[in-house]
Amino acid sequence: MTSPALDAALSYHRAWTGKDFETAMTYVADDIVCHAPSGRLDGAEAFRGFMGPFTRILTGSTLLAAFGDETTALLMYDTATLPVASAPGAELVTVREGKIVEMRIVFDRAPFDAAREAAAGS
Amino acid sequence: MTSPALDAALSYHRAWTGKDFETAMTYVADDIVCHAPSGRLDGAEAFRGFMGPFTRILTGSTLLAAFGDETTALLMYDTATLPVASAPGAELVTVREGKIVEMRIVFDRAPFDAAREAAAGS
Repeated sequence: MTSPALDAALSYHRAWTGKDFETAMTYVADDIVCHAPSGRLDGAEAFRGFMGPFTRILTGSTLLAAFGDETTALLMYDTATLPVASAPGAELVTVREGKIVEMRIVFDRAPFDAAREAAAGS
Repeated sequence: MTSPALDAALSYHRAWTGKDFETAMTYVADDIVCHAPSGRLDGAEAFRGFMGPFTRILTGSTLLAAFGDETTALLMYDTATLPVASAPGAELVTVREGKIVEMRIVFDRAPFDAAREAAAGS
């Protein structure tokens, strides 16, 4: 089964995990709505402010699974980051005309919070 | 495309979100390996100790997406719980002979930690 949504989601994923965040952003619609653990982000600039810093602390990633249909795709991956050795995440995206118009991203903020507190206390 | 893995994952999901945790456990292999935010859980009893208490604080759920192939399935859902109004999660499962033998579950522990701290401080 071909999946235009999965194609876009994987292109976006490969770009940001490959540290090419500007290419990744070419798959993100200007009016993207992103549901992140910290709340709702409206628009590409808000999204950039959320994901951009994350890609700068990224040291590695592994795609664990990826599925999609005509309009939606669902990915799970593991990441390695400077503060947290293993930080898996999952993304459910809706794609329209090759661009991600909606994304729900799930990951555990607890180890990032703990690393931040440890750094502040050191 | 039929997916035996998705069938098992959805049967498990419908049972535990329907508050029938014992039926859910019939889809869990005795030697399940579960990778949870808190770490690795080995075996059905450890898994029961993790998921059982969660189902008791569950007040609602919505399946957001579900995909699968012959051996794996990937789900994302939102849950409502007593301490946290919206707690989305994602599960990647490997299924063998109708039972879940491996699960990676991703969710954000931060709001649960915050609710626990608020309760302890009140």
